[in-house]
Amino acid sequence: MGRITHSRPITKIRLGYGVSRRPDTLAVEEPLEIRVSGAPLAVTMRTPGHDVELAIGFFLSEGIIRHGDDVVAAIHCGGPGTGGEENTYNVLDVGLAPHVPAPSPSAERNFYTTSSCGVCGKASIDAVRTVSHFGVADAELRVGPELIASLPDALREHQAVFDKTGGLHAAGLFDAATGELLVLREDVGRHNAVDKVIGWAAQNGRLPLRGTILQVSGRASFELVQKAVMAGIPVLSAVSAPSSLAVELAEEAGLTLLGFVRGINLNVYSRPGRILAPRQEGERAASGREGVAAR
Amino acid sequence: MGRITHSRPITKIRLGYGVSRRPDTLAVEEPLEIRVSGAPLAVTMRTPGHDVELAIGFFLSEGIIRHGDDVVAAIHCGGPGTGGEENTYNVLDVGLAPHVPAPSPSAERNFYTTSSCGVCGKASIDAVRTVSHFGVADAELRVGPELIASLPDALREHQAVFDKTGGLHAAGLFDAATGELLVLREDVGRHNAVDKVIGWAAQNGRLPLRGTILQVSGRASFELVQKAVMAGIPVLSAVSAPSSLAVELAEEAGLTLLGFVRGINLNVYSRPGRILAPRQEGERAASGREGVAAR
Repeated sequence: MGRITHSRPITKIRLGYGVSRRPDTLAVEEPLEIRVSGAPLAVTMRTPGHDVELAIGFFLSEGIIRHGDDVVAAIHCGGPGTGGEENTYNVLDVGLAPHVPAPSPSAERNFYTTSSCGVCGKASIDAVRTVSHFGVADAELRVGPELIASLPDALREHQAVFDKTGGLHAAGLFDAATGELLVLREDVGRHNAVDKVIGWAAQNGRLPLRGTILQVSGRASFELVQKAVMAGIPVLSAVSAPSSLAVELAEEAGLTLLGFVRGINLNVYSRPGRILAPRQEGERAASGREGVAAR
Repeated sequence: MGRITHSRPITKIRLGYGVSRRPDTLAVEEPLEIRVSGAPLAVTMRTPGHDVELAIGFFLSEGIIRHGDDVVAAIHCGGPGTGGEENTYNVLDVGLAPHVPAPSPSAERNFYTTSSCGVCGKASIDAVRTVSHFGVADAELRVGPELIASLPDALREHQAVFDKTGGLHAAGLFDAATGELLVLREDVGRHNAVDKVIGWAAQNGRLPLRGTILQVSGRASFELVQKAVMAGIPVLSAVSAPSSLAVELAEEAGLTLLGFVRGINLNVYSRPGRILAPRQEGERAASGREGVAAR
């Protein structure tokens, strides 16, 4: 059984109060490959636990089975992950009753990576690294936390449709030097909002997106970090929580990931070296400030 | 170009103040089928608009293209929807430059329905109706709005992992008569949390889930309504906004959909006949109360 939460040290910034390094608890996100009689059917990013329920509920939702009895066996399939670690909980092989027609593959939630027994977070991260054309560079970029703290309000101000419906995710791309909003897109799906932003950048010859910050209205999943990495975005800032795998990918790929960016609070989950120490009282210029990582 | 918002009349309940019928604005959710040179590649549920950006961003995120120039053409493909209506914006055919290898299908976000030119919300709803084994019955079920208003707090109280991480979606299944929590599941993906609840019900011989209310922590998408319908759940209550297609499917399938269930407020988006009029001051028993639909 996989872990449901994961603890790791993060950098907490409170504007006007200072910077601290302390452990934070993350919700675990890992891929689960669902197989039917050994044949891969779907991969979904999920929180480990209750995997058999997840598979049965998925089969019912998709009309593959009609009753719980239509599933006659379910077993986690162990095997080494690509990092060599044992991984015994991310592949679930399900046996259906003889009267149930075999489902066609790619019913839903397929995943870009070539799944192998032992699909795991490490394999997912490796897959992203393999296909990434740009990668994240921008090692010299420095951003003041005050600028980042202002982005959620800036995003909200420009969210025309959210005001009417209360129901849309938003992704906004900001210039990391000036805080200028370059583009904002809204969508019922947060991955779509980010895809639209990246598509806009591609159409305008702006890839890779060096010197930018992507601010999103919700949580930071593995998928959003992946998209940012693929577009070469150095800083991703989310209003809510990141998942464990989002943080791991951000760290490996060199992306600075912030979460719970609310009011005077900012949590830095990876690569804090790009974030400057908060401005002291009376201090105006950013020049000469140390990064928070130096503390 | 599709609409981004959609207005429709809903039933608004304010406990202690009364019931009103008034227009509400919904964020539009519609399927977009992305094709490459005529071959279907992926279907995603999205808010219409900026579809070319969405396709390009998706291709970049998946490593299919490296630059915006790799896409040489993009055209919306018109055709009649299954309801006979013209639908000219839900299929996008993309041409890639000759040097770009053709992507393999099912890269991500495939959809259960057999897509045809003219994929639209109506086709999606029809597809659910076709594969649904139980359907939503429970026409006689009546639920007091006071009970539903208490569910978000009950959900939150039992969310063990959310308290630690602030990062998990939850789905809780409640008995509609007593308000008893039957099962709660948490996951980084809200569709997974609902699948786990339905899988639990299947394993415990409780399908179809007559006489229950499914309370979810976030928004109500088409996919969540679909899952509730497939399991025979009569009432779905969400803390945040539903999408347009979620409401349409709920109405067609006979599911009572509530959104923005917060404090004394409840919005009823479909089938309000199952919701009783709010209790008057001093009134204790639910018997004899009229439904809000009667007003």
